[in-house]
Amino acid sequence: MSTRVLEIRKGVLNKNDELARALRERLHAAGLLTLNLVSSPGAGKTRFLELTLRTMRERGLRPVALVGDLATDNDATRLAQSGAPVRQITTHSRCHLEAEMVAGHLDGWNLSEYEYLFIENVGNLVCPASYDLGEDVRVALLSVTEGEDKPLKYPTLFNSADIAVITKIDLAEACEFDRAAAHRNLQSIRPGIRIFETSAKTGAGLAEWIDFLIRERAARRGAASRVEA
Amino acid sequence: MSTRVLEIRKGVLNKNDELARALRERLHAAGLLTLNLVSSPGAGKTRFLELTLRTMRERGLRPVALVGDLATDNDATRLAQSGAPVRQITTHSRCHLEAEMVAGHLDGWNLSEYEYLFIENVGNLVCPASYDLGEDVRVALLSVTEGEDKPLKYPTLFNSADIAVITKIDLAEACEFDRAAAHRNLQSIRPGIRIFETSAKTGAGLAEWIDFLIRERAARRGAASRVEA
Repeated sequence: MSTRVLEIRKGVLNKNDELARALRERLHAAGLLTLNLVSSPGAGKTRFLELTLRTMRERGLRPVALVGDLATDNDATRLAQSGAPVRQITTHSRCHLEAEMVAGHLDGWNLSEYEYLFIENVGNLVCPASYDLGEDVRVALLSVTEGEDKPLKYPTLFNSADIAVITKIDLAEACEFDRAAAHRNLQSIRPGIRIFETSAKTGAGLAEWIDFLIRERAARRGAASRVEA
Repeated sequence: MSTRVLEIRKGVLNKNDELARALRERLHAAGLLTLNLVSSPGAGKTRFLELTLRTMRERGLRPVALVGDLATDNDATRLAQSGAPVRQITTHSRCHLEAEMVAGHLDGWNLSEYEYLFIENVGNLVCPASYDLGEDVRVALLSVTEGEDKPLKYPTLFNSADIAVITKIDLAEACEFDRAAAHRNLQSIRPGIRIFETSAKTGAGLAEWIDFLIRERAARRGAASRVEA
């Protein structure tokens, strides 16, 4: 790649970082915990998010979601069935979301009415790693059908994640999924990463995941209050 | 995206297209049929390719392979077990292969000794679509675990493919895979696309796939002879 292209890319990234920082402050001021969900296509992000939104609402929580897609609005339609407010970001063949796209799709929402903002990124294990969306927590999803070696093969993305969610755990046996190897590979790329094992089909792991989100939001708001006090 | 970035990207693409054209001529002169395998991470490209290489060699055919990976050489090690010559292209976090990387990794091979060149691209359903690698046939792989909607959600990649290979067909029932919907979605994005259904676990579909490659190479060489004559 020419130096010129690299410099311009770096410029794009720095502009994104600045926008992401401002966005993060805006979201914190509204009391939101923001999550950026990244994974390969077909890892089950949408189905996992749909169940997360529905279960949260049943528990009286107030989530909202943005979903990035290259072309269709299938995902937004599916997510909206949860009853949570959902908006689609169509990237028109761009391979990742950027902070500007997120900020531009929040207009008209009274953010302080909500508690959790989920951003479903474009399915891609490479490019989204480089773009901060103003999130508090980056969640990398990995399905048992993809193979245990994905963290080693896509280290940049898994290294940038705060949480790993293993999906489709109901298929573990049929896929001869090696759980120990998957955990070992995740820990080698991102030491100390917290791992949830889930199934959107059986609901396994969902309660634990949502309990974690509640605690995480409370802890961050507590920390913010203490800083202000 | 700024006009300047777009112009530079277009420049990069045009340079790639020129290199790909020269590479294709070089590969044709050596008598190779070249395939570019694209899919999301975890669709089973490596395992499918490993079985393809091994089965071809058992049938007395002469395949060779290049494999693109961001970071590890796991895939090259696995593929080499087939007995076919294999080389690794480490992309150092680049999200796709380019024609220049392919050309640069052919040195030292006597190409006319081989009949089939397989190029396993980086696992990514977006970016590889834009880069011609000098291939004759672009093969998009889609596993039954990814969901039938992937062609609709990643139309640029599936639209640029000549062949679709559905992998992990042994898991179809466990995943409640809707075969008719998958075929319908593929045909709507790429009318007339040829579809193979395969399993690297059971070997289903492999013989048909290899028969196709043999016929395809023969047909292209026949056409080339007729043009030369």
